[in-house]
Formats: sequence, structure tokens, C-alpha cells
Amino acid sequence: MKIGLIGLGKMGFNLGLNLLDHKHEVVANDVNEAQVRALQSEGAIPAASIEETVQQLESGKRVLWLMVPAGEITEDLVLRLNDLLDAGDIVIDGGNSNYKDSLRRAELLKENGIHFVDVGTSGGVNGAREGACMMVGGDTDVIKQIEPIFNDATVENGYHHAGAPGSGHFLKMIHNGIEYGMMQSIAEGFDILEKSQFDFDYEQVAKVWNNGSVIRSWLMELTENAFSKDPKLDQIKGVMNSSGEGKWTVETALDLEVPAPVIALSLMMRHRSLEDDTFTGKVVAALRNEFGGHAVVKK
Amino acid sequence: MKIGLIGLGKMGFNLGLNLLDHKHEVVANDVNEAQVRALQSEGAIPAASIEETVQQLESGKRVLWLMVPAGEITEDLVLRLNDLLDAGDIVIDGGNSNYKDSLRRAELLKENGIHFVDVGTSGGVNGAREGACMMVGGDTDVIKQIEPIFNDATVENGYHHAGAPGSGHFLKMIHNGIEYGMMQSIAEGFDILEKSQFDFDYEQVAKVWNNGSVIRSWLMELTENAFSKDPKLDQIKGVMNSSGEGKWTVETALDLEVPAPVIALSLMMRHRSLEDDTFTGKVVAALRNEFGGHAVVKK
Amino acid sequence: MKIGLIGLGKMGFNLGLNLLDHKHEVVANDVNEAQVRALQSEGAIPAASIEETVQQLESGKRVLWLMVPAGEITEDLVLRLNDLLDAGDIVIDGGNSNYKDSLRRAELLKENGIHFVDVGTSGGVNGAREGACMMVGGDTDVIKQIEPIFNDATVENGYHHAGAPGSGHFLKMIHNGIEYGMMQSIAEGFDILEKSQFDFDYEQVAKVWNNGSVIRSWLMELTENAFSKDPKLDQIKGVMNSSGEGKWTVETALDLEVPAPVIALSLMMRHRSLEDDTFTGKVVAALRNEFGGHAVVKK
Amino acid sequence: MKIGLIGLGKMGFNLGLNLLDHKHEVVANDVNEAQVRALQSEGAIPAASIEETVQQLESGKRVLWLMVPAGEITEDLVLRLNDLLDAGDIVIDGGNSNYKDSLRRAELLKENGIHFVDVGTSGGVNGAREGACMMVGGDTDVIKQIEPIFNDATVENGYHHAGAPGSGHFLKMIHNGIEYGMMQSIAEGFDILEKSQFDFDYEQVAKVWNNGSVIRSWLMELTENAFSKDPKLDQIKGVMNSSGEGKWTVETALDLEVPAPVIALSLMMRHRSLEDDTFTGKVVAALRNEFGGHAVVKK
Repeated sequence: MKIGLIGLGKMGFNLGLNLLDHKHEVVANDVNEAQVRALQSEGAIPAASIEETVQQLESGKRVLWLMVPAGEITEDLVLRLNDLLDAGDIVIDGGNSNYKDSLRRAELLKENGIHFVDVGTSGGVNGAREGACMMVGGDTDVIKQIEPIFNDATVENGYHHAGAPGSGHFLKMIHNGIEYGMMQSIAEGFDILEKSQFDFDYEQVAKVWNNGSVIRSWLMELTENAFSKDPKLDQIKGVMNSSGEGKWTVETALDLEVPAPVIALSLMMRHRSLEDDTFTGKVVAALRNEFGGHAVVKK
Repeated sequence: MKIGLIGLGKMGFNLGLNLLDHKHEVVANDVNEAQVRALQSEGAIPAASIEETVQQLESGKRVLWLMVPAGEITEDLVLRLNDLLDAGDIVIDGGNSNYKDSLRRAELLKENGIHFVDVGTSGGVNGAREGACMMVGGDTDVIKQIEPIFNDATVENGYHHAGAPGSGHFLKMIHNGIEYGMMQSIAEGFDILEKSQFDFDYEQVAKVWNNGSVIRSWLMELTENAFSKDPKLDQIKGVMNSSGEGKWTVETALDLEVPAPVIALSLMMRHRSLEDDTFTGKVVAALRNEFGGHAVVKK
Repeated sequence: MKIGLIGLGKMGFNLGLNLLDHKHEVVANDVNEAQVRALQSEGAIPAASIEETVQQLESGKRVLWLMVPAGEITEDLVLRLNDLLDAGDIVIDGGNSNYKDSLRRAELLKENGIHFVDVGTSGGVNGAREGACMMVGGDTDVIKQIEPIFNDATVENGYHHAGAPGSGHFLKMIHNGIEYGMMQSIAEGFDILEKSQFDFDYEQVAKVWNNGSVIRSWLMELTENAFSKDPKLDQIKGVMNSSGEGKWTVETALDLEVPAPVIALSLMMRHRSLEDDTFTGKVVAALRNEFGGHAVVKK
Repeated sequence: MKIGLIGLGKMGFNLGLNLLDHKHEVVANDVNEAQVRALQSEGAIPAASIEETVQQLESGKRVLWLMVPAGEITEDLVLRLNDLLDAGDIVIDGGNSNYKDSLRRAELLKENGIHFVDVGTSGGVNGAREGACMMVGGDTDVIKQIEPIFNDATVENGYHHAGAPGSGHFLKMIHNGIEYGMMQSIAEGFDILEKSQFDFDYEQVAKVWNNGSVIRSWLMELTENAFSKDPKLDQIKGVMNSSGEGKWTVETALDLEVPAPVIALSLMMRHRSLEDDTFTGKVVAALRNEFGGHAVVKK
């Protein structure tokens, strides 16, 4: 098929290579021209602008895949495409958008007869290159038209049409929420090992846990890799950033009144890691001093 | 009544003054002679040793109040008194002992006919001086004998015979568990205020919350005091130490299969505050780098 | 002063009585006519509609106090008042509105020169009647004009001008978040007592904790009251509803990246209490069966 | 090698078959004679008692593998073997013992020159049969002697000598703690899906997550299996039992002052699932009624 691919960052560029490998025609656009030329040298058709990308595709049958940062950039792009596209065209948002935005955008585009498909993509940068996991939301007849792309872009059994528009990003959000909990679980386990009286070899521990144990998993394989490079992780600080989906998962859990303490705490411990000192701690220390005369640590 | 008071630290010394105020005879002992002399100058009978303390009291009617650190020191003292005392004598442990130790010690002393009474004391150093809150465990007939002491040592309605030996320290443990949760709740609230877009005056906030609100409490009054001295708590670090009862509360909750997430998390956030960096954080940061190429913060 | 009071439910009616006690003129309106007549019989001036309420007050000096449910009803009322009022008039929202709505409404009314004041009220129904705790947000010169009302409506020291519009509801939100944590802390403590080997008298426990202990508080007094009526709470189910502020507190904590595990868990345990069985539990039980052959409980 | 295998339950019996497959001589004993005969029919040498098991093995070179329930049964067995065995013999505890017990038992047996080896086994019943994951604690020269057994009993790379005696069970404990957190994470994710506005096919969701996603794992494969049999888990109740290691992990985290909120909450939500109603909930509901007049749910 012929696909307009907008956004050639780490994920988008690799997805482009992947689609080219599978003999799709890729019309490539990015704000960074160098990226466009780089993908052109791999066989893509370059497009200097959104407009040019749109023009290179056949009206009413266009497929435009956005692989750009969630939030404002995606919003702007959807609004522009809403003006440029024709009824029957398909916009695929492959970024990490909030499913509430996807629901809204699907409604918006629908007014002009434009179809919206939301794709949650997992598997990291390598997944984008060699076959990712894709959770797809969209109307069934629309999905049918473009299913070959998803089958090509994913690993075997790594594509799933989850349901109506929005459901793909919803599923990806929950996937990431689970990921937060799994990562924090693994990390807490190693933290206890680190403080214990024993002298464990963490790479070997992760390795044995990857062979026959209940907790064998890709994340544990990555843990094994990480420890193989830096046995005690001496070179990095324990700063845990986050990128939105974990927070959205917790907010959704609150909206739906689902207790999700493990996912919530995984996120909150990430927030805690961003601070060297806390006001919470100051208040508790001050109170202990007030009622019990317990010494505080002066700054 | 005539009471042997062993342990003249912050709490014990003030308790001694309090008992003297109420016309009790206090035989005072401490490893620190200066403290003994100090209480002597307030009217106490000095005792240079445990043996001398015991000798100053009438066999079979002795009342010995221990106000020493929980753990080894209390254990040693109970074992020594087990050798020195006679049937009918009463040992009161007014420290923060684990109730499991109290249960065991009550059994041990019972073999020699010695009575054991466990007193959980709350209200801080001032409480010990001017009237504390005392939760008392012990056999009813034993408690009857010494009830006047408890009535004198406490504020009005601040004395409660909770049940069998061990129940006093159990109740104090739970009291402290609740205290951990309340303090963390208050502190989290002020932490959110601190990060907000508004510019709150924390002393005034605590003050208004102490007048008519649902959360008015002694801890909020102490919060008001703390902020009146240091409006943003700039002078102290957020290091939250702990002294045992919170941990025992969580362990007891686990033993009894009671979900106690709030008390548990209050304790765990204290533990978190003792660390500048965490191994948990390093593992999560390393994993994010492995699968998503997210940058780590180098040390 | 002359005040238009819209909303005569449990809180509003009692506030009306309180204002009348303090010799204010109250123009009273409610969708329920019977409530209007009831407050009329206590001295209020009845108003059959919002319009009539507005007409009874002097243009440019009007003070309208809304005591209606947060959300749609408040929103509708503010929009109607925005059309009806004149520059210089003051709208007070005394309900439990989300501070984000208050920020927005303050901006909206400002365009017409109408002042917005947000009042977070604590102390329950009795507080409204006899003197509440009020946390007030609004511009300083506006607040100055109506400060006498707040001083009369509150207990001594129970009024605080917290800052700019929105800050009153923000403070009330955090107050409730702290309240959630305190209540859950107290409740967890009693739950552990209930499962313990001892036989505690909960009313007496709450009573002793209210006299001299670190955790003495109004909530503990209410706990004492509750146990005095139903010693084991045999007559009620442990269903913990919630009304918004706790959730907003957690959402705000997430927005501001403040770890607030205790407040978050207090809310999540409330959500858990609304369910007889959980899908989470089913998944874990199914997994234990899959890997370990552990028996599941059949429905 | 010739191995005395005591305990032929689900795990022990399968381990026996596995060892026989690998041409080891197995002297089999169990309190249940039928199990002994069953393994005899597969090639094992039957032993009617512990004593007979011991006699069938060569003094000073004996290897006795215990596969019995942790706690009292293991304790009794270790004490009996301490009397029966000779210096140089090896006792392997393959059960889920607390590592603190293993540390103590290693010291105890050492006094008689008997070696103790603790083996944490993961992989479930099938793992025991076809190759498990084994984390082994013991002195290096002792482990050397019996390493061939571990290599045969495990999957490739599924054996790890973790360190000194106790370290095997410590590692297994942490493994299970991580497992608790991972399971709860997965389960919370599906719970949010279940309450959402979408209509997900959980088997397909688990399947796509097992192919190319970050959270692909054996536990997710088991999730897929579980949903393939019962698409909405309608047939089971969400009762989450636990068997000790999760609790020990949390207790160890508390001892070592490691914050482990995710593992702790995973356990506490299991405890919560054992109750239909909670005292915590009753207290909170009663308090809401006291201060706000909020209706309680009557029993």
C-alpha cells in the first residue's frame, strides 16, 4: 500500500524502514529535513510539507500515519489534516495519545467523513524496526482496508483490533500502567537483595529468573542486559521519569472507581525519585520534634 | 504509694516529678547518677542500684516502674528483677516495648508469682510531666492495687485498663500506627499546598484547620506551632526517623491479615526518606533506557 | 449585611439560621419552596426565583451566597448570575466545587466586573449552624467588604482568607484529602484491634485516646460517639462512599508530581469497599491456579 | 547419583520423575504410602520411613532432598535427620522455607558436620516435572558435589548457586515477592479494562501483549490461557490466597528499611480479598455519618 508517514523520530523512522522492507510505498515527512532525506535514501518518497504529503496520495483513499509526540503536536496535525483531507481518507495516530483525545478526534474527523484509527505501539525502538506489538482502535470496515499494513508492521500475533476508535490507545495506556507496576516490582525485589546480608550477582540472578521461573519476562531479560553492562548500576542515578500513560492509567482507575494501588504507587514512587528532599518529610520531622523532642536533621 | 522508678530519661524524669507532685514516694534509680541526684533534689529517695531500689520497697508489695528503652535494656532489667523480686511484687513496664515481649515477660514473671503490668504512654514529654495518656494491660486485681498511681499520672479520662497483660502495649502500638498515618496525611496535604500555584501561609492554614474543621487535632496544633517557628520549614531536612511501633503495627497487620495500606505506606515513606538515592530507582531507570532508549541521569 | 442565599439544603439552611442569628438580612431561595418558607418563618426574606433574589438586592453591592451541589447545578447558577448581575456584585460559592472550576468561573465573571469568592466550608452540618471553619479565596479588596459575614459565620479563628480566587476551594480540597487519610488511619487501627487476640472496648479506647494522647482529635471524638451508639458497629456495612474532593486531591497530587500514597490509598480502599468481588481478584486467583495448581473458589 | 527424596506431593513426585528420567537413583519416602508405591512403579526405590531412607544411602555421602511443606513439618524432619545423619551428609531443603529458618538450620546441622543446602524452586508443578528454575544456597565445596543433580533438574540456565546457605531461599522469597507485584499489576490492568466503556476480548488482549510488547511474560501467557478457558472469569471468585513468601518479603523489606510499596500492597489487597466486609469500612462509614450526616448502608 501507499502510506503517508508523518514524523520520522526514533519510532517513526524505524517504522518507515519496516514498511519499506515489506514493499509498501512510503511518502515521508518530518519537520527535520535530514530525517526525510535519510529515509529517502532507503527508498521513501520525500515530502517537504504536510500539504505535499497529502497531495502525493489519492483523494478518498489516503492513509496517513502520524508518528509524532502526543499532545499539542498531534492536535495541531489532526486539525490541519481535518482541513486538508477528503471523505474516505484515513488518519492513523500511532503515537502515545491519551485515549480521551483520540475519542474526541475520531468524532471531529468523522464530521468530514475522515476515518480515525488509533494505534498503541509497544516494543520500543527495535519493535518499530523489526516488528512491534500494535493495539488498534477503529471502525471494522476501515480497519479491514489497512489491516495488511498492521500485519506487516508487527511481529507474529502482535496485531490486535481491539474495538471502536479510542480502544487502541486505551489498551496501550493500560499496557503501560501494567508495565509501571511490573518494573517497580522487579526493582523493589532487587533493592531488597541489595540491602540484604548476601552478596548476590544480579546479572546471574536475573538470568536464572529468566529460565524456568514464574517471573520470566522480557523486562527481566532487559534487567539481565542492564546488569551485564553495569553490575551494580553504579553509573546511574535512580531518577525515574515518566511519560504520561502511567498517570492516565491512574486517573482512569479513579474515574472508574477501580482500586489500582500497585500502578498508582509505581507512579508515585517515580514522582518521589524526582525530589532530593520532600516537604512531606519536613512536616513529619517537625511534628516528631514537637511532640517527642526527637531531633531533626538540620539543613 | 511508694514506687520504685527505674529510668530517669526525658520521660521517666518527668513522670517522677509528676508522681512527686501527687504525693507519692518515689525511689529513683538510673544508670546516670546525675539524674538520680536531680530527682532527689525534687524530693525523691535516691537508689544507687537496682538492688538498692528493690531493698527500699516492702517485699510482696513492691511496685517497680520501668521507664527505660525497649529491647535489650528492658529485657535485662526484667530478668534481673525476676531474680530479685518476691511473689506479689509488681513490675510495670512503661516503655515502648513490643507487646509480644510483654506477653512473654508476663508469663516469665508469673512463674515466680510476680505480676507484670504493661503501660503504653502517650502525650510526649509534657504529657509525662503534666498528665499523660496511659493504656494499661494487666490482671484486674493487680491493676486495682495500683490504679491510684495511674489516675494521678494521667490527664482526666486519660487512663484506661485495656485488658490482659500485653494489651496496654498492643494499644500503644496501634496508637502509634494511627499516628504515623495521621502525620503522613497531614504532611502530604501540606506538600501539595507547597507545590501548588497558590502562596499559602501554612501557619494560618493550620490555625484555621484547628478551628471548626473536621481535621482539628493535637497534631494539627503541633503543625501550627512548627510553622509559627519556621514558616517554610527551611531549616530542617525531610528525614523521617521511626522508633519501632509503626513497624510492629504493620507486622501485626500482616500477621492478622488486616489490610493496612495507609499505615504501611506511612512507614515506607519514612524509610524512603532515609535514602538519597535508591536501587529501585536505578533499576527502573536502567529498564526505561533498555526498552525505550530513555536517557538515564548519570552520577 | 444583606445577603442573597441560594440553596437551603442541610448546609445552606443552617448557614441561613446562623446568619440570621447574627442579625444579617437573608434573602432566601431554593428550588424546594418548603425550605424557603421554613427559613422565612425564622426571619428570612423569601424569594421565589433566582431573579427575585437578585432584585431584592442593591445593584453593584449585591452579595449572593450559593450553597448548592458542586458540578452542573453550580455551573448553571453561575452562568445565570453572570447574565443577571451587575459590575461590583459578589458571588460566593460556598459549595464543594473543584478549584479548577472556581478558577474558571472567577475569570468568566470578571469579564462583567462581577467578583467571585470561593469558600471551602468544613465542620459539617453543626458547623454551618453554630460556626464553621471557612477557607476563603478572593481578591483582597472584595474580601474586605464581606469579611464581617465570614467572621460571624465561623467559630473563633475559624475564618482564613487564603489567597487569590480558587485558593479557598483548593484548601478545602486538601483539607478533605487529609481527612480521608486520617479516617483511614483511625479505621485501620481499629480493624487491627478487632482482629487481635484481645477483647477491647472500642468506646473506651477512643475515649482514652482523646485524653492526653498524640492522636486526640475531633475525628477520634466522633469515633468515640459512634462506638457509644453501636459498640461493634454491627448494624452497618463497611461501604465507604466518597464525594469528590479526595479524588481531586489525588489528581492534583499527580498533576503536581507530589507523592501522596496515603491519601491515594485512602481513596482506593473506599473504591474497593464498593465491590463485593473484584476482577483483580479473579485474575490473580486464575493465575495462581495456572502456575501452581492452587485451588480457586468457585462462584 | 543416589538421592533420598522425602516428600512426594505435587512438587516432590514430579521432581522424582524428573530425576529418574535423568538416570539418578531415587530412594523415595512419603507419609502417604500410595505415593511411594506410585513412584516405585516409575523406578524409584521405596522407603517406608525416614530411617529406612537414611539406611539406603551411604554414610557420609548421603544426599537427602526434602520436598515437604515449610514450617513445622520441615522443622521436625530437619531435627530427626540431625539425629540420624552423619558428618559429610547433605540435607537439601527444596521447600518454600523462610530463609531465617534455613540460616538457623544450617548452623544447627553444621554442629554435627552435616551440610545444609537450601533450594528455592520456581516454575510450578510442570517445572518440577520437566525442568524448574532453582536458586541454591550452600557452601561452594558442598554445592560442587551435587551440582549435577541441579543441572539435571532444571531447564537450561535455570540453575544458579546464589551464595551462602540461606541465600537460595532468600532469592526464592524475593522472586515470589516480585511475582506478587507482577500479578497484581496485570490484574489491576484487566480490572480497569473490565470497567471501561469498551468491550475487550481479554484472551486476545493477553495474546497481543505476549507478542512484541514490553510486558510479554510467562505470567501474561498464563493470563491468556486462563481467559481462553473462561473469557470473563465468571466461574471463579476473586479470593486471593497467599502462602507466606510475599509476607516474608514485606517483613524483610521492613527489616532492611527498603520501601517496597508495590509488593506490600499486592499482599494487602490479597488480604482484603479474604473479607466480605471490613471493620475499616465500618469505622469510616460511621465517621462520615457522624460529621456529615452521610447515610450508612445498614446490614
